[in-house]
Amino acid sequence: LLERLPQGRAVVGAGDDAAVLEERNGVSVLATADMLVEGRHFDLAFSSPSDVGFKAIAVNVSDIAAMGGRPTFALISLGANTALPSSSLEALYDGVAEAARAFGVSIVGGDTVGSDEMIVSVAMLGEAARPVLRSGARAGDLLCVTGALGGAAAGLWLLRAAGHDARARTLLQEHPNLSEAYRRGRARVREGQAAAAAGATAMIDVSDGLAQDVSHVLEQSGCGVQIDIERIPAAGGVAAVAEWFGASSDDLTLQGGDDYELAIAVPPDAVDDLTGAMSPTSLTVIGTFTERTGIALADGTPVAAAGWDHFR
Amino acid sequence: LLERLPQGRAVVGAGDDAAVLEERNGVSVLATADMLVEGRHFDLAFSSPSDVGFKAIAVNVSDIAAMGGRPTFALISLGANTALPSSSLEALYDGVAEAARAFGVSIVGGDTVGSDEMIVSVAMLGEAARPVLRSGARAGDLLCVTGALGGAAAGLWLLRAAGHDARARTLLQEHPNLSEAYRRGRARVREGQAAAAAGATAMIDVSDGLAQDVSHVLEQSGCGVQIDIERIPAAGGVAAVAEWFGASSDDLTLQGGDDYELAIAVPPDAVDDLTGAMSPTSLTVIGTFTERTGIALADGTPVAAAGWDHFR
Repeated sequence: LLERLPQGRAVVGAGDDAAVLEERNGVSVLATADMLVEGRHFDLAFSSPSDVGFKAIAVNVSDIAAMGGRPTFALISLGANTALPSSSLEALYDGVAEAARAFGVSIVGGDTVGSDEMIVSVAMLGEAARPVLRSGARAGDLLCVTGALGGAAAGLWLLRAAGHDARARTLLQEHPNLSEAYRRGRARVREGQAAAAAGATAMIDVSDGLAQDVSHVLEQSGCGVQIDIERIPAAGGVAAVAEWFGASSDDLTLQGGDDYELAIAVPPDAVDDLTGAMSPTSLTVIGTFTERTGIALADGTPVAAAGWDHFR
Repeated sequence: LLERLPQGRAVVGAGDDAAVLEERNGVSVLATADMLVEGRHFDLAFSSPSDVGFKAIAVNVSDIAAMGGRPTFALISLGANTALPSSSLEALYDGVAEAARAFGVSIVGGDTVGSDEMIVSVAMLGEAARPVLRSGARAGDLLCVTGALGGAAAGLWLLRAAGHDARARTLLQEHPNLSEAYRRGRARVREGQAAAAAGATAMIDVSDGLAQDVSHVLEQSGCGVQIDIERIPAAGGVAAVAEWFGASSDDLTLQGGDDYELAIAVPPDAVDDLTGAMSPTSLTVIGTFTERTGIALADGTPVAAAGWDHFR
């Protein structure tokens, strides 16, 4: 739908993690927007209003990070039921403020309106010395991911089951990182900037799941990737949750959403430098870009590009 | 609530028609956001999806215009019921595209999500050589308005009554400008820039009604205004609608919302130049800013600052 619109002046319009509006004095201005809807992107039974406010900022920061940028300014528009107590609204804005301070974003305006569902709509600007798009990966580049995956999806599984399942409650207590990953989300700003400086050829955040988001890089770069599934780093507790659920860890790490780690295409000779620059955040090589399109495992098995809808 | 947030780097943060993010080479960068919610800001019984898309852009352009700026880039996030036919969504984006072309805005991204109500959230950037804030009006300045007022509110009255009132249907046909004013909204970009160049001391768009919006100028400027109510220009058909409804035209022109004309504070010696620069758009002097705070009529009667909620 966005492609119906006049993108006129923009250097890079809709279709990447963020648009590139213009370049001035060697700095590119970035812009992105994400809208979170109650019952679809968050559930007030599992997340506090302040978690929702924090996450609304973090997911936009993650889009700026995935371009190799740093966030600068944001606008936030909130739709909320007029029956909601003002303390909940204040808590939501306190979560926004906490994230804004954590990521160095100035919140310069927005709108507050009545609505049935809670809706949090954020637009964010950023700056990048060298924006990294989704379109630059080439056969022979290595596919790397920051941090560890599957944590947010595992956290959501547990939160949904906790009301009726004692084992889920135990796992939530044993692995507090999982519910935290689902509720708030991180954004890898420093890591994205390091990747841009080290010569990354393409980058995306894995907010919709590794398989789905990497497939966007492949479409726009015109290549494929072979993934060594055993190398995909799983967040602490993901294996235990997968076992409890009767699923495979790979389902969570490959297709679970809301992790906000970065998937990065890097020429082989740049990986060591980038690994050093990322420290203490881990960088893991999980595959190699190929001439043949699509995602395949090391043994040639194709992987579906779709994230699991029920994670969303 | 927005005042709880860190506004850090901004030259002018939340609280005006738009924020002023920074100044570069004599040009100030502006940013604003507005969210329209079905059933509150529009009604799909009275407005087509393409009207809604057009209006979502126009109301944000109007905020940029009220700073004396021109719009540059926008992001649009849409929440829509997944049962809505795709032709409706396409029509909405066609309305967005029509407004973007009319006002010279590049639409560089956004988000599309499922929601129960339809929500259209726009963030827009602009540029101004000399941003005109709400805070600069001084006693002795003249209060002027562009165009004519009350049309959008009169249009909404008629649209609401048309199902059961033949006279309302006749008035809608006789005065098509009224429903058009409600459905789409204008934005006075050229006029706002002319006002800035002519030395306007304060400016605001009258989206919430003249009385309410002028009261924001008064609060931030620390002065009052005496309005000559007989001089307020009424849109064509407003007198007839007021007579049909048993109300006064002044109720519509002073307190009706959604007109998106500009209210401008101008030093007396600049009014003639500005009137010439505005042409063919009319500029009408309707009052004088005073040391005494509040809004008063020429005979001293105070005017309530509130817009009429049922117009919204």
